[in-house]
Amino acid sequence: MTQPVSRYPVPTLDSVPDDIRQKILEVQEKAGFVPNVFLTFAHRPDEFRAFFAYHEALLLRESGLSKGDKEMIIVATSGANRCLYCVVAHGALLRIYEKKPLLADQVAVNYLKADITPRQQAMLGFAMKVCNDSASIVDADFAALREHGFSDEDAWDIAGITALFGLSDRMANVTSMRPNDEFYLMGRVPKAGR
Amino acid sequence: MTQPVSRYPVPTLDSVPDDIRQKILEVQEKAGFVPNVFLTFAHRPDEFRAFFAYHEALLLRESGLSKGDKEMIIVATSGANRCLYCVVAHGALLRIYEKKPLLADQVAVNYLKADITPRQQAMLGFAMKVCNDSASIVDADFAALREHGFSDEDAWDIAGITALFGLSDRMANVTSMRPNDEFYLMGRVPKAGR
Amino acid sequence: MTQPVSRYPVPTLDSVPDDIRQKILEVQEKAGFVPNVFLTFAHRPDEFRAFFAYHEALLLRESGLSKGDKEMIIVATSGANRCLYCVVAHGALLRIYEKKPLLADQVAVNYLKADITPRQQAMLGFAMKVCNDSASIVDADFAALREHGFSDEDAWDIAGITALFGLSDRMANVTSMRPNDEFYLMGRVPKAGR
Amino acid sequence: MTQPVSRYPVPTLDSVPDDIRQKILEVQEKAGFVPNVFLTFAHRPDEFRAFFAYHEALLLRESGLSKGDKEMIIVATSGANRCLYCVVAHGALLRIYEKKPLLADQVAVNYLKADITPRQQAMLGFAMKVCNDSASIVDADFAALREHGFSDEDAWDIAGITALFGLSDRMANVTSMRPNDEFYLMGRVPKAGR
Amino acid sequence: MTQPVSRYPVPTLDSVPDDIRQKILEVQEKAGFVPNVFLTFAHRPDEFRAFFAYHEALLLRESGLSKGDKEMIIVATSGANRCLYCVVAHGALLRIYEKKPLLADQVAVNYLKADITPRQQAMLGFAMKVCNDSASIVDADFAALREHGFSDEDAWDIAGITALFGLSDRMANVTSMRPNDEFYLMGRVPKAGR
Amino acid sequence: MTQPVSRYPVPTLDSVPDDIRQKILEVQEKAGFVPNVFLTFAHRPDEFRAFFAYHEALLLRESGLSKGDKEMIIVATSGANRCLYCVVAHGALLRIYEKKPLLADQVAVNYLKADITPRQQAMLGFAMKVCNDSASIVDADFAALREHGFSDEDAWDIAGITALFGLSDRMANVTSMRPNDEFYLMGRVPKAGR
Repeated sequence: MTQPVSRYPVPTLDSVPDDIRQKILEVQEKAGFVPNVFLTFAHRPDEFRAFFAYHEALLLRESGLSKGDKEMIIVATSGANRCLYCVVAHGALLRIYEKKPLLADQVAVNYLKADITPRQQAMLGFAMKVCNDSASIVDADFAALREHGFSDEDAWDIAGITALFGLSDRMANVTSMRPNDEFYLMGRVPKAGR
Repeated sequence: MTQPVSRYPVPTLDSVPDDIRQKILEVQEKAGFVPNVFLTFAHRPDEFRAFFAYHEALLLRESGLSKGDKEMIIVATSGANRCLYCVVAHGALLRIYEKKPLLADQVAVNYLKADITPRQQAMLGFAMKVCNDSASIVDADFAALREHGFSDEDAWDIAGITALFGLSDRMANVTSMRPNDEFYLMGRVPKAGR
Repeated sequence: MTQPVSRYPVPTLDSVPDDIRQKILEVQEKAGFVPNVFLTFAHRPDEFRAFFAYHEALLLRESGLSKGDKEMIIVATSGANRCLYCVVAHGALLRIYEKKPLLADQVAVNYLKADITPRQQAMLGFAMKVCNDSASIVDADFAALREHGFSDEDAWDIAGITALFGLSDRMANVTSMRPNDEFYLMGRVPKAGR
Repeated sequence: MTQPVSRYPVPTLDSVPDDIRQKILEVQEKAGFVPNVFLTFAHRPDEFRAFFAYHEALLLRESGLSKGDKEMIIVATSGANRCLYCVVAHGALLRIYEKKPLLADQVAVNYLKADITPRQQAMLGFAMKVCNDSASIVDADFAALREHGFSDEDAWDIAGITALFGLSDRMANVTSMRPNDEFYLMGRVPKAGR
Repeated sequence: MTQPVSRYPVPTLDSVPDDIRQKILEVQEKAGFVPNVFLTFAHRPDEFRAFFAYHEALLLRESGLSKGDKEMIIVATSGANRCLYCVVAHGALLRIYEKKPLLADQVAVNYLKADITPRQQAMLGFAMKVCNDSASIVDADFAALREHGFSDEDAWDIAGITALFGLSDRMANVTSMRPNDEFYLMGRVPKAGR
Repeated sequence: MTQPVSRYPVPTLDSVPDDIRQKILEVQEKAGFVPNVFLTFAHRPDEFRAFFAYHEALLLRESGLSKGDKEMIIVATSGANRCLYCVVAHGALLRIYEKKPLLADQVAVNYLKADITPRQQAMLGFAMKVCNDSASIVDADFAALREHGFSDEDAWDIAGITALFGLSDRMANVTSMRPNDEFYLMGRVPKAGR
């Protein structure tokens, strides 16, 4: 009854274009394994390139949001979209970046009960509205963020990350993308989380 | 920013009635710590007694459901009700009973992607309808269970567990009941999970 | 086309354990008939005992809520959960306790249109949030209750009653528990309501 | 805390146009009192005339639906729209037409638990879809009605009644139209219901 | 794959009662074609008469709402109810009355992004609540309208138009009423619009 | 009251990086104007590049879906997400590709009433489930597509387009991205649509 990596064919490393193989080898070097999102998306090289370019554009840029803030948005969004892959994989990153082994489970289930700051509560409140009812976003939502020190550029970052992971949550749900077993434990125990 | 055990006062062990202290000491002996649900409910001794009596009536009785099946229902229900305490605490029990370290996260986020049998998928499908729209339960829902070998008594068990944890999910959400830190890791690593 | 008492077998009085028979005879003595909830739950003696223990713990304890307030919460909750048994049976009790023959129908359909006080409106607003979206309960919800003189213990009572009847609404919906014909008229006419 | 007849001014009988006064006197003669819907709508004579003309067009025409069937649709629709006036007033008519004192409460809360025929269940299933999600009505919904002997003209009747009472439910909710006290008891007791 | 005018029979002009033929000829004279709503409703002459009487009562009466305001409410309501006929046909009227070729598409998709005044935003906010959740309308909703200069009679007009088009949206959805091709372009180009 | 192009600053052509200016000039050459999505996204050059790369990956690849099919998915998705920009801009493209001036309005409001084939109905049914409830996608959804001749690669295309425009709908809603006036009329009249 163990689910496969993806409902779609997963290419072998030597069958993918060079730039994609290169990228996969890099992440393998860094993480110690190849996250299944790379293998699943490699079935469609152009979409692979575009997705990871978007990912880097949002996650690597200078921002009023910390790396932990950004992963927190991903975990909360993916919890709302009920996407197993992203809750588990980005939950691991959130635990590692924030050095808080309990945080990811809290944020995935109900951010209102998480051990986070009021500023982070406001950030996730905005993200949840973008996720669930973006058509109703109004000026007052930006004003609420500003009260916690978020600039309008930060608001774009929150919205962009929420929107991008709304995309990947849907693709992961449709492909039944399976989280690597390694992610479940990362960041939960002092040594196990690299 | 760490949340307290409960929004309500939590009694000390020597201030609770004897039978409740006895029960708390037993669970502490067995688990190595006192799960916060015992401390939170101890604020109201009569409700404590009734809740745990109901809990035992459903979870300890002979049934067509295994202990793992029952915990799976609790985790899926609590995921739907977005109850942090029950997802984390019963997720630990599910991992231990089923000896599957990944299962609880799968069931809490989206049971349709979990490594479970078609019979368990049907069981959780019934539980989710009881949880979210019990007024629409009809004969066909019982028939669907029977196709997977569930008797009507099993259907009662599924419904009863879903309903009881609908109660505890609501109380945990209202009291902001905090899961003990110990639960997060239980059953995830060979030795750490007792 | 008349529905039976329960989708499940209903025991005869002489086949149930002594304590349960005793309890059933007491309520029959008092009400003049045996409410079907007692017969339906008697199919599972341990669950019967736990349910009624919880019921008494919440409904008989000293509280800032009157008996009428408590029944009002049950009727509003059961209306939201679309549970016929509890709307009809507790509607009868609400009419009797409050001596208002019109009140139960008002509360079951839309408490915002009921002949109740602003304090009771606030109480039912909190109950509806616990019923429908307990994960979103925040400090402001408790503050709103306090403005109407409700203590935090009263808030627990409101939540507890809402949660317990969320349980019984689900069990009544799953078992297709039929309200006794007697309840429909109780408290509507001067003499008929005992 | 007793609510008024309407949030809007209610005209006196001698201030309304002749045809409307005539209609009101007729209903008073027949019912023994003036249902508040006549007084509330009389605030807008042209809307009064149009509403009751529509009402008669649908409720008095020859149809595959009995008078009881039609009132059942109104009660189920008004329960779904949470309209107190129509649940109470048309609940009274339903009890009287069907000579079933329990039926209205059953249909208002959950028609799936009501003492009605499978044909009536199908009729109310169609009505609920028109009420809650008319944009999703497809050929299969008409086919399901035909299996129970409903013609396409009957389907129009069901939809028309559902739609008209969707209108009156909204107006009653907006005006806080109060059901007359008399309705609550009509048809519940042998003599009291006329 | 072109859909017919209606799922139901559409009468020929010479087979309808005189008053209805008269009305149809008048609108044909004025618009240059017969809008399909007239043909679809003509299948039921009494409902035809009542519907258009209600329509005139609300749309022709003196009001604090302009003709454009009224059509805006219809378009927003019909967008929410996903009624193709009314979005297209009343979208045409809205463009013509307001002399704004872009306005109807904006209002149908998301009035919060439309080129309208804050007063019109408030008007449509009230209409959407009447459309989607009329049971929750409270005093504060009327107060919000008053802040923008709307009287309580204006509130009735907004609610009445929303409720009447909730009716026609449902009938159009059930009958699969097809918008005339002519409507799609009306008011979009200087000469083409009537 | 006319809304601006974007809530965020819109760069001038000479302030953007060369590759982006090049791309903007190309689309201007082809369309006769610069669609506002290019200006809005140009505020963030890296996200601009990634978004349009993803767009091309999905919309330009060989597929079992025609260009018209793809635009139809975008319009239906954007209608469900209530995104004005994408409904209007991609509605224009849909009209042009399919040479059907009425089609976009039909699909945006309710695809079940559109003049499309049963195969296209199935395609949009899958897209709507990906858009609104991707966590519930199961094998049966792929089987339903196969009955209409869609391969699993086509299913990926449908899901990918739905997911990508779920992203752009959210960004357009958050930035209040304004559709260019030109789009509203394109493809509606023989000469006006280029």
